[in-house]
Amino acid sequence: RIDSARLWDSLMQMAQIGPGIAGGNNRQTVTDADAEGRALFKRWCDAAGLSMGVDKMGTMFMRREGTDPEALPVYIGSHLDTQPTGGKYDGVLGVLGGLEVIRTMNDLGIKTRHPIVLTNWTNEEGARFAPAMLASGVFAGVHTLDYAYGRKDLEGKTFGEELARIGWVGDEEVGARKMHAYFEYHIEQGPILEAEEKTIGVVTHCQGLWWLEFTLTGKEAHTGSTPMAMRVNAGLAMSRILEMVQEVTMAAQPDAVGGVGQVTFAPNSRNVLPGKVVFTVDIRTVDQQKLDGMRDTIEARAADICAELGVGCAVERVGHFAPVTFTPELVSRVRAAAEKLGYTHRDIVSGAGHDACWAAKVAPTTMIMCPCVDGLSHNEAEDISPEWAAAGTDVLLHAVLETAEV
Amino acid sequence: RIDSARLWDSLMQMAQIGPGIAGGNNRQTVTDADAEGRALFKRWCDAAGLSMGVDKMGTMFMRREGTDPEALPVYIGSHLDTQPTGGKYDGVLGVLGGLEVIRTMNDLGIKTRHPIVLTNWTNEEGARFAPAMLASGVFAGVHTLDYAYGRKDLEGKTFGEELARIGWVGDEEVGARKMHAYFEYHIEQGPILEAEEKTIGVVTHCQGLWWLEFTLTGKEAHTGSTPMAMRVNAGLAMSRILEMVQEVTMAAQPDAVGGVGQVTFAPNSRNVLPGKVVFTVDIRTVDQQKLDGMRDTIEARAADICAELGVGCAVERVGHFAPVTFTPELVSRVRAAAEKLGYTHRDIVSGAGHDACWAAKVAPTTMIMCPCVDGLSHNEAEDISPEWAAAGTDVLLHAVLETAEV
Ligand SMILES: NC(=O)NCCC(=O)O
Ligand SMILES: NC(=O)NCCC(=O)O
Repeated sequence: RIDSARLWDSLMQMAQIGPGIAGGNNRQTVTDADAEGRALFKRWCDAAGLSMGVDKMGTMFMRREGTDPEALPVYIGSHLDTQPTGGKYDGVLGVLGGLEVIRTMNDLGIKTRHPIVLTNWTNEEGARFAPAMLASGVFAGVHTLDYAYGRKDLEGKTFGEELARIGWVGDEEVGARKMHAYFEYHIEQGPILEAEEKTIGVVTHCQGLWWLEFTLTGKEAHTGSTPMAMRVNAGLAMSRILEMVQEVTMAAQPDAVGGVGQVTFAPNSRNVLPGKVVFTVDIRTVDQQKLDGMRDTIEARAADICAELGVGCAVERVGHFAPVTFTPELVSRVRAAAEKLGYTHRDIVSGAGHDACWAAKVAPTTMIMCPCVDGLSHNEAEDISPEWAAAGTDVLLHAVLETAEV
Repeated sequence: RIDSARLWDSLMQMAQIGPGIAGGNNRQTVTDADAEGRALFKRWCDAAGLSMGVDKMGTMFMRREGTDPEALPVYIGSHLDTQPTGGKYDGVLGVLGGLEVIRTMNDLGIKTRHPIVLTNWTNEEGARFAPAMLASGVFAGVHTLDYAYGRKDLEGKTFGEELARIGWVGDEEVGARKMHAYFEYHIEQGPILEAEEKTIGVVTHCQGLWWLEFTLTGKEAHTGSTPMAMRVNAGLAMSRILEMVQEVTMAAQPDAVGGVGQVTFAPNSRNVLPGKVVFTVDIRTVDQQKLDGMRDTIEARAADICAELGVGCAVERVGHFAPVTFTPELVSRVRAAAEKLGYTHRDIVSGAGHDACWAAKVAPTTMIMCPCVDGLSHNEAEDISPEWAAAGTDVLLHAVLETAEV
């Protein structure tokens, strides 16, 4: 078993860097705070005897040698970057849990045939530079390096400039590495494990996603003096589309989610009907055909809703990843480890996207999930218990040891 | 008849101050741009021989003496403040039309028994500090001065602080003045006059209004990993309430309007269900009982909608004015002036609220309306023709002269 106190202490030390405003963290990707977090992580890895490789996306690969020079490494990874009002565990638990696995192996003098490479992926969150999971996306060949370098934040700074500014442009070609297997430990970011009192989530799939950004064009007009029949009401169209997204999602049950997190009215004045309403729809499910079907239905019905109201309707598909089925052999290994260690567990689908979803395109991959209080994440109040954190790290240790061959 | 070219020239000069982004104006109340507009207006009034009084709400009263020291003044008023993306004529036409009336009287050496007081009311729009018609509301005894001073903009600045900052806190008690009559000339802000090719709107009534501000409390949660059944979806509740407001309004036809101009999501991120959604409902009709009935129905049905979704629902009634019937004698005088001058006209109900609606509580009051292109207002593209502007100003001149007694 791993050292629960040491793991928790490392989590708390990392949480000192890039403090938020409400007890969480603002350690957004390729900021000074990110650089500070990377430096601390590197010091810990150095102390654990790991050697570092960095690729052109700034992803950190920290290597523990194996006994067989020919064997491909087993990777453990997640991310140290956070949302602007993020929690202390989202991503961080996976990286520092991985570090704790290696520290435990060191303590116990365990040697493995395959090397172990602990990975900190750059820009998982996508909050500062969309899309999410940017570096793992380039690694998996989904995005080009140029595309990634050109992504802009709200101030117009590019990802490439900012990565250079913090001094983390490595020399490795992105995606050149071959993996024997990839493991990621992450908080659930949802309420299921806690509600069912399970300590370990055995992740079998990850939902695919479409992000649709709608721009509705109405006619700015006075709310008092514009007769109902003469309105071109983009706000009303938006509300009908939100209801329709709910309907389409409910019709796709079980195992589909759909919702809207972002709505912006312009000019957003009490007595002006909006000239423009912009909002994003987020739909996810594990079945690609169902996912694309939901997308098509939503786009078509939105167009009808807008046409009926005379409202202009433009849709941009601003984000996508396909559903992932994790490697059954690795999934079984995680389940068996939880069982052996005596932890309560259940199979679960990852609702959120993770670097593991891109890694799965290029390597046998699976994930382990940790419960989180009230299912709360992307929120500074995000919380987990030290016991949960330790349990998942134990499972990670055992699954990795089996895969890396002791 | 008034000097059409001079009127138009003044309108165009005022439109230079607080330029918008699309040819209109952003000269919101008690901003630096407002102060600049006031200074220009004062220079013009000085040149026209008017003396200034300013009350504690910053409302400007520009006086032309009458021949009878006992006679109460005839007031002409409207407002120079604009929406954030406002037009060049909303309010401004009434103030500068009034100035043109006085300039014409000066040119022709006309003396009146009653003094004439040209008024620029502070914060008619209510865009920056709700509610609308704030200064005339205090004048009419509807709001206290403390209430008005405490109103906050989105940055948390108060109306009182900002009025002091721009240097326009006057020494007059608000509402101390007595009026012989009050006239307001304003653009229609709706499509009726233009559609029916009438140059003059003889305003008989003004719709009453309720502004309801809803604050819905949901649960911030990840859009991907939160199952549908566990969502507390404030955005969905908002969309159902918008549809319901539309239904309630359509059931109240004819002569009722209802809509939503402002919707704000927090934290407004693509992959976070909103923890809070704030929006305002604007409903209006000329019948007080119908208006209050709509309000009650909307509040009750909104509570049901939210209860069904587990969403917290708080409603604040942030604005109200009762329907107004303007003084029949003054209405007839406006109609007769239009007739005498040979302008096409029709009786009309004001869809928008105006300072005249509050003035009507304390003085014989009426309004004159000018058509506007496509009924467009609260829009930078708001437009009128110089001929329309001149016609209404002519009618204002004649109605005022008759009331002030030449
Ligand atoms: N894990 C996580 O929140 N990733 C961000 C992308 C997503 O919304 O799923
Ligand atoms: N005339 C005008 O737009 N006044 C603002 C108050 C309202 O919305 O009616």
